[in-house]
Amino acid sequence: MRKVRIGIIGVGNIGTVHMKHIMRGEAGEWELVAAADRSPGQREMVRELAGEGVRLFEAGPDLIDSGVCEAVLIAVPHYQHPELSIQALRKGQHVMCEKPAGVYTKAVAEMNAAAEESDAIFAMMFNQRTNCLYRKMRELVQSGELGEIRRVNWIITDWFRTQFYYDSGAWRATWAGEGGGVLLNQCPHNLDLLQWICGMPSRVRAFCHQGKWHDIEVEDDVTAYLEYPNGATGVFITTTGDAPGTNRFEVTLDGGKLVCEDGKLVLHKNAQRISEYLLEAKDGYSTPECEVIPVETDGENPQHAGVMRAFAGAILRGEPLVARGVEGIRGLALSNAMHLSSWLDRTVDFPIDEDLFLEELDRRRASSRIKTGKSVYSDTEGSYGS
Amino acid sequence: MRKVRIGIIGVGNIGTVHMKHIMRGEAGEWELVAAADRSPGQREMVRELAGEGVRLFEAGPDLIDSGVCEAVLIAVPHYQHPELSIQALRKGQHVMCEKPAGVYTKAVAEMNAAAEESDAIFAMMFNQRTNCLYRKMRELVQSGELGEIRRVNWIITDWFRTQFYYDSGAWRATWAGEGGGVLLNQCPHNLDLLQWICGMPSRVRAFCHQGKWHDIEVEDDVTAYLEYPNGATGVFITTTGDAPGTNRFEVTLDGGKLVCEDGKLVLHKNAQRISEYLLEAKDGYSTPECEVIPVETDGENPQHAGVMRAFAGAILRGEPLVARGVEGIRGLALSNAMHLSSWLDRTVDFPIDEDLFLEELDRRRASSRIKTGKSVYSDTEGSYGS
Repeated sequence: MRKVRIGIIGVGNIGTVHMKHIMRGEAGEWELVAAADRSPGQREMVRELAGEGVRLFEAGPDLIDSGVCEAVLIAVPHYQHPELSIQALRKGQHVMCEKPAGVYTKAVAEMNAAAEESDAIFAMMFNQRTNCLYRKMRELVQSGELGEIRRVNWIITDWFRTQFYYDSGAWRATWAGEGGGVLLNQCPHNLDLLQWICGMPSRVRAFCHQGKWHDIEVEDDVTAYLEYPNGATGVFITTTGDAPGTNRFEVTLDGGKLVCEDGKLVLHKNAQRISEYLLEAKDGYSTPECEVIPVETDGENPQHAGVMRAFAGAILRGEPLVARGVEGIRGLALSNAMHLSSWLDRTVDFPIDEDLFLEELDRRRASSRIKTGKSVYSDTEGSYGS
Repeated sequence: MRKVRIGIIGVGNIGTVHMKHIMRGEAGEWELVAAADRSPGQREMVRELAGEGVRLFEAGPDLIDSGVCEAVLIAVPHYQHPELSIQALRKGQHVMCEKPAGVYTKAVAEMNAAAEESDAIFAMMFNQRTNCLYRKMRELVQSGELGEIRRVNWIITDWFRTQFYYDSGAWRATWAGEGGGVLLNQCPHNLDLLQWICGMPSRVRAFCHQGKWHDIEVEDDVTAYLEYPNGATGVFITTTGDAPGTNRFEVTLDGGKLVCEDGKLVLHKNAQRISEYLLEAKDGYSTPECEVIPVETDGENPQHAGVMRAFAGAILRGEPLVARGVEGIRGLALSNAMHLSSWLDRTVDFPIDEDLFLEELDRRRASSRIKTGKSVYSDTEGSYGS
């Protein structure tokens, strides 16, 4: 069996999770041949776990330049995602980029252009797309069998993080280091799923609160109101400050309602389209007959390892990816729009003004405080699983 | 047993429900002595049900002027609530006013002033305050045992109405006749409960959509974002266009989370205040121990009849009301603020500019279309019960 030679750039929290999956053979046909990390301690950790056969680099660009890898997995701080992806793609190396695609869409659009010009495979680590519940939701919504979307409410407030978490890395939760808070770090999955399942809204009005619950300079609390091209509306509510939080994703359609909560997906299926019933009923208060159906799924939820297996399959056998790299820009556009709306204190339409966003972001980067605490490695394996 | 002589002004849908409760003796110590309605058919209905002993009037002011009643129950279109209440209070007649208190707070403030100057009892028909679930929520939130509120999310989209409903009365769903849509007709209970349980927000940004699902000129779809004086945020989402709708009221506090849904109230109680845990924890991802407690209530939910029994008790024995009349202005202020925010396309602070609101409302009343369909009486008994 042929294996693809892969290098991991950034062996921090999530990079280490990937490395272990690869080494255990859980992630498909990979041979770990290189790793890059600026931290001597992390390089030493790789040496201990992966042995002498793995080439170690301090800097990602050197790993790419060495040419020892056919594919790279990019798991460094967000700002570097586009530049490293572009470098690798131009070298013809396949790229798996961790989420988010970047910090601002202008850079990500350049990355996508590089991907279009390259023959290499470009993939995004949207591991939540492997979750059977979200796959099924997408299938039900996108198939059209339930008609058009009328309302989307996602309360996703179970991203609790302590102050200790924010103090664990100097880049964390700073405009200069991370470029945002809960929208950039925790929510890329949710924002991607939101657009993957429901499509892109046409405008956003968001209320981002910076350092509301934690001693950080970026947002840790967001409420966003969304309007879709067909007139549907929605809210997206998130925070890292609530415990216990809620993860309740509700999509109301003309033919019924989907509610995903507590690891279950339930379909409330109307016997008649509500838009028709509303006009035809000969009384004031009745509603169409509605059947409550616990939705069956295939039960599969292979997460990061599944995304990596599909990536290997795409390279070796032309199989479909879980998420094409160029799709990463959509969730980031949602995130950028929420920030921009909040900063400008007004509704913003899609596509957003990318230059204005970058200008506003750069102002915040310029006055960003640099944290002095030393970086702490956390064993987060198992905390990304659902 | 002494009974209080009461008259009902407006014997339409809800007025008829009240009349039946009174006649069956379910509503406390009342003697129905008069009724007023502009419709000959409705007066005839009262005559048939209540007999010759009840004095009938075409106009509410004449019923009040007659002096045959010690108390009046006002169940006419919203605009007339303040003027009729003021007239009765100034005559020394006790007043039970249907919700909403009025259409605009400026008129309601005058009504409240009249109530302050009167020795008569002034009560508001906030029958949902009798619901054991909401009473228990209020008790848990207001006692302070769970600490400060952090987030309030009420998705209350189960107010579905058909076009037939809106066509059933010429005054319905017009700026001139009703002064608003779902916020004025269906949601006064929810807006009252929201402030009764969680207190008043300090500012509101709302998105009201007019005639979105129905052929009406007022709003049938609202998403509102709320900010509270302590920094807590919230959303209030409602419509008459969704079926099946949702009624999920979630309050996150420092000590845990309350979720009221499907006729159940559940408390997720933290072992430690989250604001303390967040700062003290020595890891990044953990949360405090949390116990999930199905909250027991007294199971009582006496609704309209219960509100009327308390009203009789207040008059006869000085017992507490379910809702003092002067409190009606709070929910209406929320409603007015949501309209105004949406009309002005910006955030509005409390107290809102009452003159500006009235000016904006009057502009809409001036161009309001008068519906020509004839009024249809609906037997709605049983549709107000929860």
